Amino acid sequence: MSSRRSEDSRSKREARRASASSGQQSVWRRFRNPMPPLAILNETELSLIDDTALRILEELGLEFQSSEALDILEDNGAMVDRETSMVRMMPRLVREMVAKAPAQFELHARNPERSVTMGGNWVNFAPVAGPPYVSDLEQGRRPGTYEDQCNLIRLHQSLNVLHLAGAAPVEAQDLPAESRHLDFYHAQITLTDRVWNARAIGRERIEDALEMICLARGCLRDALRSEPSLLTVINVNSPRRVDKELLAGLMAMAENGQAAIITPFTLAGAMSPVTIAGALAQQTAEALGVIAFTQMVRPGAPVIFGGFTSNVDMKSGAPAFGTPEYVRAVIIGGQISRRWKLPYRSSNVTSSNCVDVQATAESMMSLWATIMSHTNLVYHSTGWLEGGLTASFEKSVVDADLIGAMRAWLEPLEISEGSLAYDAIAATPPGGHFFGAAHTLERFETAFHMPMLADLRPYQTWAEDGAKTATERANRVWKHLLENYQAPPLDPGRREALDAYVARRKQEIARTGLA
Amino acid sequence: MSSRRSEDSRSKREARRASASSGQQSVWRRFRNPMPPLAILNETELSLIDDTALRILEELGLEFQSSEALDILEDNGAMVDRETSMVRMMPRLVREMVAKAPAQFELHARNPERSVTMGGNWVNFAPVAGPPYVSDLEQGRRPGTYEDQCNLIRLHQSLNVLHLAGAAPVEAQDLPAESRHLDFYHAQITLTDRVWNARAIGRERIEDALEMICLARGCLRDALRSEPSLLTVINVNSPRRVDKELLAGLMAMAENGQAAIITPFTLAGAMSPVTIAGALAQQTAEALGVIAFTQMVRPGAPVIFGGFTSNVDMKSGAPAFGTPEYVRAVIIGGQISRRWKLPYRSSNVTSSNCVDVQATAESMMSLWATIMSHTNLVYHSTGWLEGGLTASFEKSVVDADLIGAMRAWLEPLEISEGSLAYDAIAATPPGGHFFGAAHTLERFETAFHMPMLADLRPYQTWAEDGAKTATERANRVWKHLLENYQAPPLDPGRREALDAYVARRKQEIARTGLA
Repeated sequence: MSSRRSEDSRSKREARRASASSGQQSVWRRFRNPMPPLAILNETELSLIDDTALRILEELGLEFQSSEALDILEDNGAMVDRETSMVRMMPRLVREMVAKAPAQFELHARNPERSVTMGGNWVNFAPVAGPPYVSDLEQGRRPGTYEDQCNLIRLHQSLNVLHLAGAAPVEAQDLPAESRHLDFYHAQITLTDRVWNARAIGRERIEDALEMICLARGCLRDALRSEPSLLTVINVNSPRRVDKELLAGLMAMAENGQAAIITPFTLAGAMSPVTIAGALAQQTAEALGVIAFTQMVRPGAPVIFGGFTSNVDMKSGAPAFGTPEYVRAVIIGGQISRRWKLPYRSSNVTSSNCVDVQATAESMMSLWATIMSHTNLVYHSTGWLEGGLTASFEKSVVDADLIGAMRAWLEPLEISEGSLAYDAIAATPPGGHFFGAAHTLERFETAFHMPMLADLRPYQTWAEDGAKTATERANRVWKHLLENYQAPPLDPGRREALDAYVARRKQEIARTGLA
Repeated sequence: MSSRRSEDSRSKREARRASASSGQQSVWRRFRNPMPPLAILNETELSLIDDTALRILEELGLEFQSSEALDILEDNGAMVDRETSMVRMMPRLVREMVAKAPAQFELHARNPERSVTMGGNWVNFAPVAGPPYVSDLEQGRRPGTYEDQCNLIRLHQSLNVLHLAGAAPVEAQDLPAESRHLDFYHAQITLTDRVWNARAIGRERIEDALEMICLARGCLRDALRSEPSLLTVINVNSPRRVDKELLAGLMAMAENGQAAIITPFTLAGAMSPVTIAGALAQQTAEALGVIAFTQMVRPGAPVIFGGFTSNVDMKSGAPAFGTPEYVRAVIIGGQISRRWKLPYRSSNVTSSNCVDVQATAESMMSLWATIMSHTNLVYHSTGWLEGGLTASFEKSVVDADLIGAMRAWLEPLEISEGSLAYDAIAATPPGGHFFGAAHTLERFETAFHMPMLADLRPYQTWAEDGAKTATERANRVWKHLLENYQAPPLDPGRREALDAYVARRKQEIARTGLA
C-alpha cells in the first residue's frame, strides 16, 4: 500500500512539473480507481436480473441476421431457427461460453507507452464517437467534414486525460461513404499514437483496419492475434436483433483476436421495457448472447460488456441521458458485468442541445456513475452533445476538465507528519494566515489540482474582462490546444506504406466497390 | 426491507401524483440516504488526523474572545490563559464533553409536518445563506434588499426538495443593521413553515429569535428547551479564534437547547495548512474545541459538526470551491464526524461568477460529495454563487433540479416479476418497440424522474424556439414559482403577536440600540 502510494505521488509530482508547460494539464497517465464499486442491488436482486436474462436467451432468443453466424451458433450447440434467424441458448451454454472471455486484457497502441488495460479497476477515458454533426461557438452546428474529424482527433490527442483515440469523432460527410473509413484510419494512425476503433460494418472495413494497424505497428497479422490493438463497438439493435453487417465485422474482429464492445441500445420505454429492471434484464440478455457468440468464433476473444441503458422522456418519446435512471443503470450494469467477470463500458452522456448547465449536470451525473460503477471504458467521455448527434469542440474541453477533477479527487491522499502540519499550525497564531508559511511555500506549486477552465478572479475583474462563461473560455482553450498540437512521431517508412495502402484501396473500392 | 421498500414506493407514487399539479416537482419529503458512506481514509489514517486535532487542542489551544466563555471553560477543567484568552483542553476532557452531544436530534418546525432529523442517514437540504449580493438574469448582480430576501424565502418555500428555510438568503442591505434580524425572522416565520436559522451575533438577536419562535409555535420557552426549533451557524475565525459576539450568541443558543452548526472556515493554504490532511486536522480541532464548550454550557445541547474545508487558488490566493480537494475534505470530514458520533454539515459550493458550466460542475462535485459522505445537513444547497458572495435566483432553480436528480437515483429500485418485465419482452418482437406495450402504458406516468429544466426536444425545435439555455429556462421557472407562491397558513392571533413583537422591539432598538 505505502509503496504504491509513494509511486503514485512520485508520478503525480512529475505530472505537475509537466503541467507548467502544457497549459495546466497533467501528463498522460494510466488510471486505476481506488474506491470500492458502489452496490445498488444486493446479490439476490442481481440474480433475479441474471435469471431473467438467461430465460430471455433460453425461451425467446436473439435474432442473428447472418447465415454464417447461424452456422457457428448451431455448431456450438445453440438452438437455431433458420426460418426466423432466432437463436436460443441454454443457460449452461451461455455460462460456458462467456467464461471463455478474458476478465482483463491489454490493448496495444502503436506507441507502447499508450497501451491500456481493460478490466480490474482500470479506468480508460475515450472521446466522443459517431455523431453526424459537429459544433463550435463560432460556426455553430453543421454536418461533419474530414477536416472537423481530423481537428477533433488532434484535440483528443492534446487532451491528456483521454486514454484512447476512439472511433470517428464525427462523420466525415464530405467523403465517399464506401472509402471514408480509410481516411479515418489514416488520421487516427498519423494524428494520434493511442488505441483507436475500427469500423465494424462488414468484414472489409475490419480487414483494412487490421492491415493498417500492422503497418503502423510494424508487426505481422499473427502477432496481432496475441496483442489486440483495435476496438470496435457492436451495438445490438434492441430489442433482440443483431444486424448482418455488424455480425460480419464482429466475426472478423474476433477471428483476429481484436476487442469488441458489445452494447445493447436499451432505452427504457422505447427499445426495452419502461422499468429499469426490465431494461437491464434485456441489456444483460443481449450482451451475454452476443458475447457468447464471439467466444464461439474464437475462444478467448477480448470483449467488453457494454451498458447504454437510459430512458425516454415519456412526454415526447425523446431519449433522455444523464438522468437518475441512467445513473442507476450504469451502476447496476457494473455490478452485473463483475458477476460475469467481464470488463465494463459505459458513457458520459447528455441530451442538451448546447454546452450549458443541463449538459454539465447530465455529464456529471454520468461521470460520477462511471466512477462509482467501476466502469473500465468510459466511452464518449468528452465532447458528446445532443444525445450523440453532435460532437462539440467546447464540450470536449469542458468534459476533459470534469474528468481531470474526477481523477484528481481519486488520487491517494498523503497522511504523514508533514501533511498533518502540526508544526505549521503551531507556527501560525490565532487569526493569522498560512500564505507565507514555510510549510505552504514548500508545497504550493503542486498542492492542488489545477483546472483548465475555472475562473477564480473576483467578480469585478471577471466582469471587466468580458464576463466570459466557462463555455466561452473553453472555446479559447481548444483553439490554443489545436494551435500547439504536434503530431506524434511515426517512422517515415511506415507512413509511406500507410499512404500507399490507402491509395491502393481507394482505387480498388472505386473500381469494384466494397464487397 | 421489503416493507420499507413498499412504503417508499407508495410515497413515491403519491409524490408523482402531486407533481402533475406543481410544475414537475415531487412533494416535500424527508429523505434518508440508502447508500453506505464512502471511505477515503482507513481507521489508522483517521486516527492520525484525530490525534493531531487533539494535540492542537492540548498543546496550542483555541482563542475564546469572551471572558464569560473563559469562566465556563475554566470551571469545566480547561487550561485557560487569561492574558491571551487561549484555552487548552486535555484529550480526555474533549472526549468527555463531546460525548455529551446528541448523535441525532429533531428540529421542530412551526408546521410539525416540516420538522426534520439531524443525524443518522438523514439528509436535509437548506438554501443559500449569507451573501451580500443577489442576482438574476434581468437585473444582474446588485446589493441585496429586503424585497430580494423575501422573494428568495418565497422561492425556497416553493422548492420541495429543500427541507429547511435556512439563514438570511441575502443581506437586506436596505434595512438598519441593528434591527434587520427582526424583519428577517418575521419573513421566515410568515413566508415559510420550515425550520430556520437565528442570527448568532450577540445574545439579543438570539433572544429575539427565541421569543418569536415561541410566538410562532404557540409554546413556552421551557418547551423550546426540549424541542429545538432553531439552528445557527457558528463559524470559527480560523485559525483557532472564536469571536466574542458569536460566543455570546452560541451561549444563548446552547442555554436554550437550540442547535448550533460549528463550522471552522479552513481554506487550505490561507486559514489552514496547504495540505488537506493539515486543514482537516485543524478543522477537527476547531470544531471539537467549540463543541466541547457548548456541552459545558449545557450538556446535551444539539450541535452539528460543520465542514467547510476547501483550498485557495495558489496563483491568486482566491478561494476555490467545488474542487477535487473540496470533495476529499467533505468525504473525510464525514468519516471524522461519524467517529465522534456527531451530525455532519457540508455544502453545495462554487467559485463561478455566473450560472454557467463551471457553476454546475463545481456544484455537482459538491453535491455528490455531500451524498457520498453522508452529510446530514447540506447547507447552501441551492442558489450559492461566486464563492458565497451572491445569491442567484436562476441557480436556485438549477440546484434544486440537481438535488431532485440526486434524490431520484437514490430511491429504492423495485425488483419484482412486474418490473423485470419478462412478459413485456416476450410480447415485443425483435426490432420492435415498447411504446405501446401494456407494460409501458401501465407505468409510464410515474416510471421516470421528471426534471424541471432539461429540454429534450430535437435540436431544430429547440433552436426555432429561441435556443434557450437551461439557465434561461431557470429564469422562467423561478418567476413561475413566485407567481404561484402561496404563504403557508399561520394562525391570525400568532401573526398579530409577531407583528406586535417586531414593532415593539424596533422601537426599543431605535431608542437604546442593541445591547
